[in-house]
Amino acid sequence: MTIGVMGGGQLGRMLALAGYPLGLDFIFLDRSRSAPAGQIAPLLTAEFTDRGRLAELATRAHVVTFDWENVPVDALRRLGRPIRPSIAALATAQDRAREKQLFERLRIPTTRWRRVGSRRQLAHAVREIGFPGVLKTRRLGYDGKGQAVVRTPVDLDRAWDRLGSAPLLYEEHVPFDCEVSIIGARARRGETAIYPLCLNDHAQGMLRVTRAPYGSARLHASAARYLHRALDHFRYVGVLTIEFFVRAGRLIANEMAPRVHNSGHWTIEGAVTSQFENHVRAVAGLPLGSTRALGHCAMINLIGTVPPRARLLAHPGLHLHEYGKEPRQGRKLGHCTLVAGSPRARDRWVRGLLAELAPDIRIP
Amino acid sequence: MTIGVMGGGQLGRMLALAGYPLGLDFIFLDRSRSAPAGQIAPLLTAEFTDRGRLAELATRAHVVTFDWENVPVDALRRLGRPIRPSIAALATAQDRAREKQLFERLRIPTTRWRRVGSRRQLAHAVREIGFPGVLKTRRLGYDGKGQAVVRTPVDLDRAWDRLGSAPLLYEEHVPFDCEVSIIGARARRGETAIYPLCLNDHAQGMLRVTRAPYGSARLHASAARYLHRALDHFRYVGVLTIEFFVRAGRLIANEMAPRVHNSGHWTIEGAVTSQFENHVRAVAGLPLGSTRALGHCAMINLIGTVPPRARLLAHPGLHLHEYGKEPRQGRKLGHCTLVAGSPRARDRWVRGLLAELAPDIRIP
Repeated sequence: MTIGVMGGGQLGRMLALAGYPLGLDFIFLDRSRSAPAGQIAPLLTAEFTDRGRLAELATRAHVVTFDWENVPVDALRRLGRPIRPSIAALATAQDRAREKQLFERLRIPTTRWRRVGSRRQLAHAVREIGFPGVLKTRRLGYDGKGQAVVRTPVDLDRAWDRLGSAPLLYEEHVPFDCEVSIIGARARRGETAIYPLCLNDHAQGMLRVTRAPYGSARLHASAARYLHRALDHFRYVGVLTIEFFVRAGRLIANEMAPRVHNSGHWTIEGAVTSQFENHVRAVAGLPLGSTRALGHCAMINLIGTVPPRARLLAHPGLHLHEYGKEPRQGRKLGHCTLVAGSPRARDRWVRGLLAELAPDIRIP
Repeated sequence: MTIGVMGGGQLGRMLALAGYPLGLDFIFLDRSRSAPAGQIAPLLTAEFTDRGRLAELATRAHVVTFDWENVPVDALRRLGRPIRPSIAALATAQDRAREKQLFERLRIPTTRWRRVGSRRQLAHAVREIGFPGVLKTRRLGYDGKGQAVVRTPVDLDRAWDRLGSAPLLYEEHVPFDCEVSIIGARARRGETAIYPLCLNDHAQGMLRVTRAPYGSARLHASAARYLHRALDHFRYVGVLTIEFFVRAGRLIANEMAPRVHNSGHWTIEGAVTSQFENHVRAVAGLPLGSTRALGHCAMINLIGTVPPRARLLAHPGLHLHEYGKEPRQGRKLGHCTLVAGSPRARDRWVRGLLAELAPDIRIP
């Protein structure tokens, strides 16, 4: 069976690396010739709307998935192949307003928010929700892009000047204790498998460190319950992620990603079955594997530069994942993972490695 | 860095899958267009002696290794690239007589044996060593091929008729309690990392089941000492395997393999760093990773046929590795692995799965 993947970034690359041992084949479509997946699998290079290349992908693949949530849904519709997860799930995740509505409909707590289509609507939203708030584009936001924190009327003018040309929403800015994510998979027959909750540390809008498992059984159970609702709502097939803020022990949904997620990279070494393998299993119509954690894991993103391999690999127990990308400021080039015997040993390791790799990053 | 690999079988395929996350690239040379590594990496298809293809491999690779011990050493010499492990180690493993001499020189206990170049020398060897014995070709034997057990003068005639056209050796047939193997790596700077001892069960001359870790600390220490001697002797770079018979608690070396080994496949999920990653790390001049076992592992070879994927993957905790080969009787098509919490849980799992996959195989 050949799985077609729209998008050939590091997520796609890791999907293929997880699927090859299962005897599955892959073909990717990406706009860039140097897409990371292209180094390890056949890659069609074209715009996602290129009819010829889409037809070729459809011919060569039995089923299609995506590694990027901004793939145009019309292109997927045109393929005439099973799309997993569903186009409905993707379309919801592409639009922050639809995503918020879904959270509300499924009784998943989220921030208060208002649609903003004009300067007047923005003023109205601010009157209702107040400062501080966050102005966000409804579409194409990721890694902190397409959003602005607004604390004063001056901020508001600046944010509007920067973002006002696109459909927006304004939401309350939640002072949170920490950020977490829950990742899980649903198979075609409806069985689900949920990974332990992950604790995420960001800097400059990008994920820097994930630690898992995190939090009390109660907190995990809440997050898993919300994730189940979303999985069942879409009759979802594949891996789905929801990110939350935690405030006074309660979860507030921030956003969902209809795909494997950076905060789940630790599962490659840290869980019985990785998020990548479970996504591929689900997409291929196979049973899911165990999501049990194998210890106390940490994942550190390598952003902008990768230290010499030999220096990284000299750290006992460090697992390195390079994505084969050219270094560039602010670019995710790889990650490294450790599976420790205790949260304390893990955190000591993270602090030591961060001091070496990214002295500006501190973890609580 | 690009690693050239002579031979593109399942071992090569798993080397590439282990090396990609380190950011390494691969190129393979194999005689078969359908070599398993060719599905996931660039593959040159030619005889191993094809000068044009060897030159191309040398141009595209920074360093060369092999996944098969019968690669012609002359071809490697011609490449003009660093060969790791060394040609000397490969040449020794290609000739059972040189291998036996090495074991003797390094005081690694082995069976008594005699070179056999003629019918008369065979009669002489049998007089000295007696029945039962094993007549083996010095070269190109694997998976029980190129050898015959000899218990009577009639057996002897038959074995001679079958094998006598090639250089041979005759060795005593050791009644053993079990078969084990030790696998370890040596890096360019001389550091070594040795995996726990593995217990191997064979049928029809082929490995069927490996379980690890196996045996007492004393037995592991003996095997590791012998492996160290061989690693140091060759100033070896990469993974080396020695197979032993165990008789009354003592090790008797059977043969060595200058490469990753079927009995080490469990290390993909069952050790901190797999044998494949450690081989690639050594070949690329990188530090070695930890060889610590993560539990009690079993590996079952899938030979001749592979049951439906969905049926296999429905077994909780089962890890599947398919090699992308066409099914054929007696062919290694894949393997599956389990990491259990205890030897007992592991053995129960192995027995259950064998009853389903290969009812003819029983493990002690």
